[in-house]
Amino acid sequence: MKLPSFFEEDLQAVDAALQKLLPSEATRPSSIHKAMRYSVFAGGKRVRPILCLESARIFSEDVSAAMFPGCAIEFIHTYSLIHDDLPALDNDDLRRGKPTCHKQFGEAAAILAGDALLTLAFETIAAAPVDADRRVRMVTEISTSAGTVNGMVGGQVADIEAEGKVAGPEMLEYIHRSKTAALIRASITAGAICTGATDQDVARLRSFGETIGWAFQVTDDILDVEESSAALGKTAGKDIAQQKATYPSVFGLERSHQIAKELSEKAISELAPYGEEASRLREIAEFLVYRRT
Amino acid sequence: MKLPSFFEEDLQAVDAALQKLLPSEATRPSSIHKAMRYSVFAGGKRVRPILCLESARIFSEDVSAAMFPGCAIEFIHTYSLIHDDLPALDNDDLRRGKPTCHKQFGEAAAILAGDALLTLAFETIAAAPVDADRRVRMVTEISTSAGTVNGMVGGQVADIEAEGKVAGPEMLEYIHRSKTAALIRASITAGAICTGATDQDVARLRSFGETIGWAFQVTDDILDVEESSAALGKTAGKDIAQQKATYPSVFGLERSHQIAKELSEKAISELAPYGEEASRLREIAEFLVYRRT
Repeated sequence: MKLPSFFEEDLQAVDAALQKLLPSEATRPSSIHKAMRYSVFAGGKRVRPILCLESARIFSEDVSAAMFPGCAIEFIHTYSLIHDDLPALDNDDLRRGKPTCHKQFGEAAAILAGDALLTLAFETIAAAPVDADRRVRMVTEISTSAGTVNGMVGGQVADIEAEGKVAGPEMLEYIHRSKTAALIRASITAGAICTGATDQDVARLRSFGETIGWAFQVTDDILDVEESSAALGKTAGKDIAQQKATYPSVFGLERSHQIAKELSEKAISELAPYGEEASRLREIAEFLVYRRT
Repeated sequence: MKLPSFFEEDLQAVDAALQKLLPSEATRPSSIHKAMRYSVFAGGKRVRPILCLESARIFSEDVSAAMFPGCAIEFIHTYSLIHDDLPALDNDDLRRGKPTCHKQFGEAAAILAGDALLTLAFETIAAAPVDADRRVRMVTEISTSAGTVNGMVGGQVADIEAEGKVAGPEMLEYIHRSKTAALIRASITAGAICTGATDQDVARLRSFGETIGWAFQVTDDILDVEESSAALGKTAGKDIAQQKATYPSVFGLERSHQIAKELSEKAISELAPYGEEASRLREIAEFLVYRRT
């Protein structure tokens, strides 16, 4: 599937913003800033910041302020990958085809670089050039989506606990909605909040974000079965090897494709009131669900 | 040294607030909330939240809102201990006389419990019942003090890098001011900001906090040499064993005592304009520097 053309433009703008927001390698202590930068610039697709920007674009032509929560969420996403890859967790040597942070810099550095990125995320939100009320609402939205109660860390814990057990559809849904969908939802709501969307609009975007995030993780499960490690830039077939709770393992491949399609259509229907203003967000949503890597 | 009597009252109020702010053990996923609660309630002295409350008390009789940043900083302090104790970092089995988080729950749980506490800290600040502007200023103050540039994680990294090397006084000062003093300073400034202190007052309290935090770490170094493991509830003599950069190793014990005393006096002189209103903060400052455990 071809990337939407504006995607590349957004991606470059996000990378430039991340460059500015991260302390330089020369800043003391240099080693931690090297490790943070290594992982942030290890080839991420920038899905979350781009979603944040394109959600903001529905409500304003100037989306520059939304770069702050967008980059903050990319820092959180990166920290979660660094810590997930550690030997005590997924014990992964490769991420996007490159050595993982702890393989490159050692475990201590990887733990601290993750901690530092999570901390920098909140410093970044607090620095967004919008009124304090919006900044506080973004801190709440993003911290809860990254936390333990229906948030990313909670989903990660449930995912580990479900390994090797037979997970039912309800547990599977809980894991996917918490582990992945919550932070994707926050990317989208933060873009809307940052740009001054009404509560009603934020609620609508929240529903879109929740559902498209869920579809995104179902697609991830499918790709782990269908694609090669080379195409994914990470170890394929790992879910099966680790006996993870996944959509293909519970529902089979065919039904999983159907679920991803249904979720995606439901998500996109939430954008109907915005017409052309939401055309980019619609394109990204389809890309996320029908991608092959 | 006898604890100031109000200390016990503050401590109980802080523990009650922490109980409310932490998700219950029954909240799904239960295992992470157990690990978070285990470490938060492992017998900490609550120095940071008490400093936050007593800093707030200079400016207002009602310090209940300051409990939010105070507890947030206790979450950050606890996360830093959990991660520091990990095998890849200090590899400590005991903390305050009890098994460390990873000894009790395993490494994966300890990494995630630390991440979750750091995340919860910012959710907690954003929930403080004060206007949004103050909450944002507290997020900035606390995130920078916990970060890499002159903050806690930066100090921790510099500390690890200095192991086994000969650290000069300048590096020693950098490590102590970043690793310990920064978060103690933030406890004190957050209490002032939360209660609506003027910029001038916040600046004065910042100077007090910075200096008393520094003295606190010098005292910590001294106790590691002078006291037994039983008295400290953690392994004594560890700094020497790990060849850490400490005040006694660079300046000797006698001069270290003198430095702690000088810093403490300098810090307390900052409180002169507040007279009786700051008497509790003065008592705590003296306790922190002249304590024996």
